[in-house]
Amino acid sequence: MANSPRIGILGAGGRMGRTLIQAVQQAGYQLAAAVERPESSLVGTDAGELAGVGALGVKVVGSIEEALPQCDVVIDFTVPAATEQHLQACQKANVAMVIGTTGFNDAQKALLDETAKSIPVVYAANYSVGVNVSIKLLELAAKAFGDTVDIEVVEAHHRHKVDAPSGTALMMGEAVAGALGRDLKEVAVYGREGITGARDRQTIGFETIRGGDIVGEHNVMFIGEGERLEIKHMATSRMNFAGGAVRAAAWVIGKSATRYDMLDVLDLK
Amino acid sequence: MANSPRIGILGAGGRMGRTLIQAVQQAGYQLAAAVERPESSLVGTDAGELAGVGALGVKVVGSIEEALPQCDVVIDFTVPAATEQHLQACQKANVAMVIGTTGFNDAQKALLDETAKSIPVVYAANYSVGVNVSIKLLELAAKAFGDTVDIEVVEAHHRHKVDAPSGTALMMGEAVAGALGRDLKEVAVYGREGITGARDRQTIGFETIRGGDIVGEHNVMFIGEGERLEIKHMATSRMNFAGGAVRAAAWVIGKSATRYDMLDVLDLK
Amino acid sequence: MANSPRIGILGAGGRMGRTLIQAVQQAGYQLAAAVERPESSLVGTDAGELAGVGALGVKVVGSIEEALPQCDVVIDFTVPAATEQHLQACQKANVAMVIGTTGFNDAQKALLDETAKSIPVVYAANYSVGVNVSIKLLELAAKAFGDTVDIEVVEAHHRHKVDAPSGTALMMGEAVAGALGRDLKEVAVYGREGITGARDRQTIGFETIRGGDIVGEHNVMFIGEGERLEIKHMATSRMNFAGGAVRAAAWVIGKSATRYDMLDVLDLK
Amino acid sequence: MANSPRIGILGAGGRMGRTLIQAVQQAGYQLAAAVERPESSLVGTDAGELAGVGALGVKVVGSIEEALPQCDVVIDFTVPAATEQHLQACQKANVAMVIGTTGFNDAQKALLDETAKSIPVVYAANYSVGVNVSIKLLELAAKAFGDTVDIEVVEAHHRHKVDAPSGTALMMGEAVAGALGRDLKEVAVYGREGITGARDRQTIGFETIRGGDIVGEHNVMFIGEGERLEIKHMATSRMNFAGGAVRAAAWVIGKSATRYDMLDVLDLK
Repeated sequence: MANSPRIGILGAGGRMGRTLIQAVQQAGYQLAAAVERPESSLVGTDAGELAGVGALGVKVVGSIEEALPQCDVVIDFTVPAATEQHLQACQKANVAMVIGTTGFNDAQKALLDETAKSIPVVYAANYSVGVNVSIKLLELAAKAFGDTVDIEVVEAHHRHKVDAPSGTALMMGEAVAGALGRDLKEVAVYGREGITGARDRQTIGFETIRGGDIVGEHNVMFIGEGERLEIKHMATSRMNFAGGAVRAAAWVIGKSATRYDMLDVLDLK
Repeated sequence: MANSPRIGILGAGGRMGRTLIQAVQQAGYQLAAAVERPESSLVGTDAGELAGVGALGVKVVGSIEEALPQCDVVIDFTVPAATEQHLQACQKANVAMVIGTTGFNDAQKALLDETAKSIPVVYAANYSVGVNVSIKLLELAAKAFGDTVDIEVVEAHHRHKVDAPSGTALMMGEAVAGALGRDLKEVAVYGREGITGARDRQTIGFETIRGGDIVGEHNVMFIGEGERLEIKHMATSRMNFAGGAVRAAAWVIGKSATRYDMLDVLDLK
Repeated sequence: MANSPRIGILGAGGRMGRTLIQAVQQAGYQLAAAVERPESSLVGTDAGELAGVGALGVKVVGSIEEALPQCDVVIDFTVPAATEQHLQACQKANVAMVIGTTGFNDAQKALLDETAKSIPVVYAANYSVGVNVSIKLLELAAKAFGDTVDIEVVEAHHRHKVDAPSGTALMMGEAVAGALGRDLKEVAVYGREGITGARDRQTIGFETIRGGDIVGEHNVMFIGEGERLEIKHMATSRMNFAGGAVRAAAWVIGKSATRYDMLDVLDLK
Repeated sequence: MANSPRIGILGAGGRMGRTLIQAVQQAGYQLAAAVERPESSLVGTDAGELAGVGALGVKVVGSIEEALPQCDVVIDFTVPAATEQHLQACQKANVAMVIGTTGFNDAQKALLDETAKSIPVVYAANYSVGVNVSIKLLELAAKAFGDTVDIEVVEAHHRHKVDAPSGTALMMGEAVAGALGRDLKEVAVYGREGITGARDRQTIGFETIRGGDIVGEHNVMFIGEGERLEIKHMATSRMNFAGGAVRAAAWVIGKSATRYDMLDVLDLK
């Protein structure tokens, strides 16, 4: 293993792929390889120019097998069918993986678990460092305030998001409810209209904002008499997740073969 | 009429009454009189000490008739039955009124209109200067953005509030909808849960936060691609409304007999 | 000792005194006694009416000695000279104290420490529960992010505040700097104007807003690439401090004689 | 002229160029042409794939002369030396321009003015629709509040920004000062530290936050007694400026030859 982690990016021509190339450079690491589908017009271009960070001297290649000998670890934010092939190739080449692909079916999940017996794999629902830190803060704050405050979770996402509230908002609600010994299913309130009566302190309110291209904001409010504490996280670009994934990539090289998540990477367990 | 407006406060011992006394002093005016129910233990105390601003040399009296000769105008944030008596007394004494009492029945409303034929009366749903200014800003912003943004109205009030969204939030929604030629009844969305689908640009979302003793906050968001404009008003104490009422009191002295609202006072019509 | 804590309020006619009476009631406790200066016109009024919460059947008295037999603990947010007398009276009557008075001279501080050898005394720089919780959250967040983010502390206070930044803002800056092994004196930046050059990550920025009657707001921002975490505390009324003081009062009854602070009360040490 | 505006993007391979291609597509227009330096490895790639929006069937070309016959208007966010050549080429081909390049020297400014006698040219310091709307709102709010509030301008930008406060913050301060008849040079305050004394109402405070990759946020606060009004603009990506530039491009086609700015485009003059 070289002194600098040798990181390869799969799906390098996609928006997330380009952001990952930027994140590798921002972290001060050398990009080791960049892979696209063989039929893409981007194969052969300079990966740095593609990502808008200036020429890096690394050409985009059309096959993962060609890339793996240059890599200690690859980052894969692609689609389930592609990740399936990547898992097999990485296992064969003994290269670690950081996976941000979503939407796996059961067979694909089983393949991931099976592969993680041979090579180290990081797989997280949310690669944001700040979101993972927030969960810890929310538990601590909820315990300190106890039942002396009202708790509300306000989240905002882009206009194309089809579900509400966000998975992250629910995860934050679960963290708070768990710390207070409440069952989120029983205490969650998702909207208020008309004559609602006074607020029940045991409830946890969710307010969902949708608009424009908001990447993702979550604000948990602890509201007491004469004071309010807010723990607010704003994801402002894919760089948020890309930066976390690169941190995970540098961390996972040389670890023993098993499956890890971001709390392992951040030592927050 | 003296150079400084001679302002009397009705219901001087209530929370709003005390705040009005503070607001009179803060505006640099002399308090002219302070009235409480005759049976209150506060009759005879110094009105300034009662309001926590130091002795003013004005004793709280137990009857409005005793107070009116010292006044050019009185401010009345009490209860409908009391305001009914105050209207009659002020008409008889030819003293202007600023009324913030809420919950009138039809007969009381008719009495108010009738009285305003003899004396000038300011009667507003919301005495906040900032809220009234906000309405104007919202109309201007909505027209400039047109249909290029998503609009969301977030409001927060104390845990004891029994209805949602607030009347002010709806008033803001009406202002925006009116500027865009939309019918708020058709386009308002009051909560999002589950699979909601992508956002329809024509909708106007309302998110209602309830907690602690929040006096009243309203944030209207115009959310586009890559940018967001927010017009946010925070009422942080009764002083917000008290200050507006005192401004209305100083304004209404000497005006011709009719009924006015805050847009008249602020010259925003 | 009765089942409900018997709490007395000193300086009951001042703004903080009235708020403390409200806070006692809001916590569900019985007010035991209320004391004002003997020459105040408020002596003899009902303490509840004075505080604007309706008659409580407790008359304001003009001497602490008259009040102490009814009390397990008294709360004192007055002035140093008055607190000096209160310390001696409470020691004699063996009644616990919660003290929020500021501006003691050295002799008065020594008296406080000496008295705390006979009776339990809570003495805190800031009685806000939320501020004390925030300090803990800030330490945790700073350690988790390490040197990967830029840290800025934004605070806002009323227009009459004569110093900047606030003591609480500096306390928060110290907590963050301490967690990161930095010396706040070396890394603090208090304003930016002109050609400043790119930001040095080791610095901690302070931005000070002054306006109106803002009670006190503190927002600490951890700003990374593509994400931001904010821990924001808003004190919106004296009730914030009053509620913490009442919580301290209920807690300190029956404790052994020594000096405590809010971290003791909240079990955050 | 076709029914859909035929828009060409200069500097198509740069970060802003790619965002402009996205903005053209988002506005529902057809991309007409995309130009890069002839030596770039990106020449020949599909402009849509390059911008991450999928193949558009428009190949990146290496010379502006090749592109202009397909265009009614071109958008140019490049560098002064390049824009100099583009001005001459567009004049010859009689194609309108929207220019976002910064840093012109005097000769280049003169060339721009001279060229705008032959072809219509939009040239704006800030293409954000929201920023331009904000200026109007600020003037209206300042006039309505007059001297009854304290005004503070809080801005936040990325860690690499070398000057403070931002040009946009100063422009907002000028708008407010102008509406109130104050001279910004005399009343601006850029930092507070130590014993500052109470706030002078005539001053306008600037607070400058620097951190991470914040694109640009501006919050102007009007702070009174018991209330606060905030007008807050957040630019969250280059799409903010790109969207405004595309709006300007569609607007300028067919206009008479002269120089325009964004207030012309938005009809806010």
